[in-house]
Amino acid sequence: MALATFHNTDTAMDKNFKLTIAYDGTRYHGWQRQPNGPTIQGEIETAVQTMTRQTVRLTGSGRTDAGVHARGQVANFTCNTRISPTELMKGLNSILPDDIVIRHCCLAPPEFHARYDVASKIYRYHIANQPIRPVIRRHFAWWIRAPLNIEAMRVAADHLLGKHDFKSFEGTGSPRSHTTRTVLSAEVARGRNGRIQFTIAADGFLRYMVRNIVGSMAAVGLNTIDASGFSEILATRDRSKAAATAPPNGLFLMKVFYPE
Amino acid sequence: MALATFHNTDTAMDKNFKLTIAYDGTRYHGWQRQPNGPTIQGEIETAVQTMTRQTVRLTGSGRTDAGVHARGQVANFTCNTRISPTELMKGLNSILPDDIVIRHCCLAPPEFHARYDVASKIYRYHIANQPIRPVIRRHFAWWIRAPLNIEAMRVAADHLLGKHDFKSFEGTGSPRSHTTRTVLSAEVARGRNGRIQFTIAADGFLRYMVRNIVGSMAAVGLNTIDASGFSEILATRDRSKAAATAPPNGLFLMKVFYPE
Repeated sequence: MALATFHNTDTAMDKNFKLTIAYDGTRYHGWQRQPNGPTIQGEIETAVQTMTRQTVRLTGSGRTDAGVHARGQVANFTCNTRISPTELMKGLNSILPDDIVIRHCCLAPPEFHARYDVASKIYRYHIANQPIRPVIRRHFAWWIRAPLNIEAMRVAADHLLGKHDFKSFEGTGSPRSHTTRTVLSAEVARGRNGRIQFTIAADGFLRYMVRNIVGSMAAVGLNTIDASGFSEILATRDRSKAAATAPPNGLFLMKVFYPE
Repeated sequence: MALATFHNTDTAMDKNFKLTIAYDGTRYHGWQRQPNGPTIQGEIETAVQTMTRQTVRLTGSGRTDAGVHARGQVANFTCNTRISPTELMKGLNSILPDDIVIRHCCLAPPEFHARYDVASKIYRYHIANQPIRPVIRRHFAWWIRAPLNIEAMRVAADHLLGKHDFKSFEGTGSPRSHTTRTVLSAEVARGRNGRIQFTIAADGFLRYMVRNIVGSMAAVGLNTIDASGFSEILATRDRSKAAATAPPNGLFLMKVFYPE
């Protein structure tokens, strides 16, 4: 009996699947599985279980909040199955809801862990800076009616570069013991028709960090605070100094990087 | 009594409002009011009636089908009201659903008619030409998995230019006595990440004309037919020769032009 149990749970047979996932987060209660509503993790776990007839637990690179989207979320799970990554991806994409898609699937080394192994991530935040509320982009951009001062926002973005304690931009109620992160790039780009994109890469992000940064950068763009005021918010390490959190619908997890 | 009635319907007091409208057509049964489901016309008429306390009838530049979107649909209605165009637009945008917005509102001459007076229109059709089904753009582009031959599609598009009988590209069940239209421009553009846009301007469009043209152009792009075959479809004036109608979700009514 003990031997049989040992065989059934023989992890030497397990494959470690690495998934790259895109989703429209509009109708989900965020990434993480929870009992009270649909989540991305929950949908994918259910789809994998339908295909493999096994209970799996998906590990994401990190949570995304309700209404936040992804173009390149990464997750892994181990499963004892004969299904190939290509077959798995094809099968999952035929049964997943139309707002979630697996963009890539491969086998990772047994020790690969989608959260612990993250080297850096890129997030992008979209602003629709136009007098009339957007309709086509309403779920994918934050509507700001008054014209934003892009140059001031760029100066503020420069203050983010490098290693800082980002406690001022951490979400309340989710304190981390270490709030120092290194921002690798932070750029504001202006597109056509009032489109503004803020793209930030860092070795890690605190909860609500991007949305809190964007909230204060928008205040800079609206000339409510100036770029040096923005720099002070960062320096005070006090969440109450920052502006309101930007809404989730403008935020996309673009890419997750791993070593090598 | 007759006099009072005359006064109540005195059209000299009526204002002729011209609206420019954007909408996400995903959840609507098309432009035209109907009893069995929500329509763009119905939503706007209801909103205008809420504001003006009067029954109005909106005249669109033309119908758009279920699932088709607009960035610049034009409509007009007459109404005896003191409300200014600016107030009307602001009020409508606060009560309309979030997938419809009035982008512009002004007073037009009394004789302006949004359908009869159309000089030309521009439609744009979006294709997501990528191996993996799109999620963010799923309601706004036709997903075609196999790589399209853009150059062949451009040659086909050139055949559309000028005055032709477009009977081959008319929807079945909605025959018009005159099926000759003049195409002013027809261009295929390639964007990033597999985005392909087909933009067509004409003095008028038959029902399903753009979607039927796109269906046959996609067949050219997939090398199912060649550009001269496309030209023959146009020449035969026979709907049965054309490829299947492209789905509605890729189509946007971009702009409607009027004389002067």
